[in-house]
Amino acid sequence: MQNNMLIAQSGGPTMVINQSLAGAVLAARNAKAIGTIYGAKHGIQGILQRDFVNLSKVSQAEIKAIAQTPSSALGSVRRKPTPEDCKAIFEVLAEQNIGYFFYIGGNDSAETVHIIHEAARAAGSSLRCFHIPKTIDNDLRENDHTPGFGSAARFVACAFIGDDLDSRALGGVKVNIVMGRHAGFLSAASALARKTPGDGPHLIYLPERPFSLDQLTNDVKSICKKHGRCVIAVSEGIADAKGEPIAARFSKEVDSHGNKQLSGTGSLGDFLASEIKARTGISRVRADTFGYLQRSFPGIASKVDMQEAYQVGEAAVQAAVKGLASGSIAIRRNKGNTYGVTYKPVPLRNVARETRHMPASFINKAGNDVTAAFMRYVTPLVGPLPKTAHLY
Amino acid sequence: MQNNMLIAQSGGPTMVINQSLAGAVLAARNAKAIGTIYGAKHGIQGILQRDFVNLSKVSQAEIKAIAQTPSSALGSVRRKPTPEDCKAIFEVLAEQNIGYFFYIGGNDSAETVHIIHEAARAAGSSLRCFHIPKTIDNDLRENDHTPGFGSAARFVACAFIGDDLDSRALGGVKVNIVMGRHAGFLSAASALARKTPGDGPHLIYLPERPFSLDQLTNDVKSICKKHGRCVIAVSEGIADAKGEPIAARFSKEVDSHGNKQLSGTGSLGDFLASEIKARTGISRVRADTFGYLQRSFPGIASKVDMQEAYQVGEAAVQAAVKGLASGSIAIRRNKGNTYGVTYKPVPLRNVARETRHMPASFINKAGNDVTAAFMRYVTPLVGPLPKTAHLY
Repeated sequence: MQNNMLIAQSGGPTMVINQSLAGAVLAARNAKAIGTIYGAKHGIQGILQRDFVNLSKVSQAEIKAIAQTPSSALGSVRRKPTPEDCKAIFEVLAEQNIGYFFYIGGNDSAETVHIIHEAARAAGSSLRCFHIPKTIDNDLRENDHTPGFGSAARFVACAFIGDDLDSRALGGVKVNIVMGRHAGFLSAASALARKTPGDGPHLIYLPERPFSLDQLTNDVKSICKKHGRCVIAVSEGIADAKGEPIAARFSKEVDSHGNKQLSGTGSLGDFLASEIKARTGISRVRADTFGYLQRSFPGIASKVDMQEAYQVGEAAVQAAVKGLASGSIAIRRNKGNTYGVTYKPVPLRNVARETRHMPASFINKAGNDVTAAFMRYVTPLVGPLPKTAHLY
Repeated sequence: MQNNMLIAQSGGPTMVINQSLAGAVLAARNAKAIGTIYGAKHGIQGILQRDFVNLSKVSQAEIKAIAQTPSSALGSVRRKPTPEDCKAIFEVLAEQNIGYFFYIGGNDSAETVHIIHEAARAAGSSLRCFHIPKTIDNDLRENDHTPGFGSAARFVACAFIGDDLDSRALGGVKVNIVMGRHAGFLSAASALARKTPGDGPHLIYLPERPFSLDQLTNDVKSICKKHGRCVIAVSEGIADAKGEPIAARFSKEVDSHGNKQLSGTGSLGDFLASEIKARTGISRVRADTFGYLQRSFPGIASKVDMQEAYQVGEAAVQAAVKGLASGSIAIRRNKGNTYGVTYKPVPLRNVARETRHMPASFINKAGNDVTAAFMRYVTPLVGPLPKTAHLY
């Protein structure tokens, strides 16, 4: 007997989240146990509202075009299900004869899947529940890295290549705010922009180390003395010694997972630029906040990231069809010198809620740069970058 | 008898300003009248400081690699020469036996070349002085469009394609601030992102029309009623009915040409987002300021723009060698259905100082969008954009 499948997307979109959708959908078409494949619009909100797309009716060519398109083709949501939501979700799933549920998202989404699966077990349902990882923040536990990160990192690296050339031309201090609430991986990827000595970013500040304006001031003065200019990567999630995010001082909004809004505003960059100006006396200090372009810019995704995002979607369906009741598909890097990965189902609770941080071995002693170990880690995830040249 | 050549770059960099450098340098190598080719670092500042690069010694392969590199490879400057500067510049030019001077820049740079040429004539010098146009703002008189614009427009179009997909996924209102001090061409290019009905940007505000928060509020409400979300392109140069830029309320810095700093800060976007939130009651309102990435992002330049930037550099050298004493090379679009351009030397004073604005035929009646005539104008300058697909 066949059961139907339901898949949805949640949280912040990425450039390759539709690759995972495509991987899961096309794998499900090859699975005899799976009947009709539905997509719920806007995550659990679409389930609650019975707002579905029949993905079985979408041609393979269309699915492949969707895979190449950034952002969540089914729409997304930031909503944590209440116990009442869970009850209502079951009713919808039972009504539609759903036996397979897949949710593509970050650690909040893994938690959602975990809640639904626990409730399914308690109700004696055999619903199979899988989380398919995605997050540009690269902060999911159990994973070497997450789909979406490599492409966002490629955007950030390209942005710093261009911006550093701009800074060479006009000088001064440039602050660039990079996404990353708790983990600094994406800001750290800015280091990929360095090709020749003197190239920026010259300083990188991460949420994993307490941020201090005094250190920033001293660091900037010292870099300007050496290079006559300074390009800085700052994670939006940098926090003071008490762990309070600096950006939270300028933000009032909180989402249903308790996260304060950090993105979609230029206030952290503007604050840092004005502090640097006041504290160093340097006249040309500028700030840019890369914003949503980091997760949505079309046409520049990392090839490795696209491929892995597709395969992790496939792997989730394959694990569910093989009989596993629930899990998240973790990406593990193979040992050895040649880059390669393995997809491993892990318990949902191992991925839910808590986030992964940059390991200490990836951050330099002063807490203002990355290490060679980080560069070895990140380089294969991002792929080749545009070539540039200097006259002097 | 040979005279040497000096070339320099000025103002805000672009993705293709080095194509113009390459075009001029490689054309000069074929000109028997031209001796050694020098590049001055950081515009007139490098001339004053005798800080030169001997470009005759740079290999053709290196020049071609430089051409592909965004930003000004010789460095740039924002400085208007004083009469004392002009006197000092002549001394340096005479000392180095410079007979040909080329300055790549916007209208401020054309003014600089004009001042130097007027002074040269007054001093009885036969120095040939040429301005080579560049500006992402596309605001030089005499030109159908300017080198740098097509590539920046391509960045903006791509950014809006991705950001509109992001907005489809999560909804709400999104404000994106686009560069453009006096002219709205670059913000207007965001309309290239529209592919299917309902695609954003849904509203476009330009410096050419007085900006009012009341109109913005009404427009946003109306779009949200229709589409359930709203993506907005706003030019950094939008101004009130008195002509005072809105962004100038948040800015203190003024450059030597009398321009207030508008870029390198997120304050205009943050202001508009908070006003929209307060006036409409919509909870999810975000703002991004695209910033310097618009002029420096590597690897995505428009092919037409690259080619024209190269050719306009070539054309300047050819005009000078042919015997013209001074001028700026204007890009004129050929009549007819097939896109093509002609490079025409025009008097420096025609390009200097004053800027060109979007013609009325490019802006809709309500002042919140562009017309079909603008789309016909801009499309060939930007070239093919990444393909995307929708599930619903």
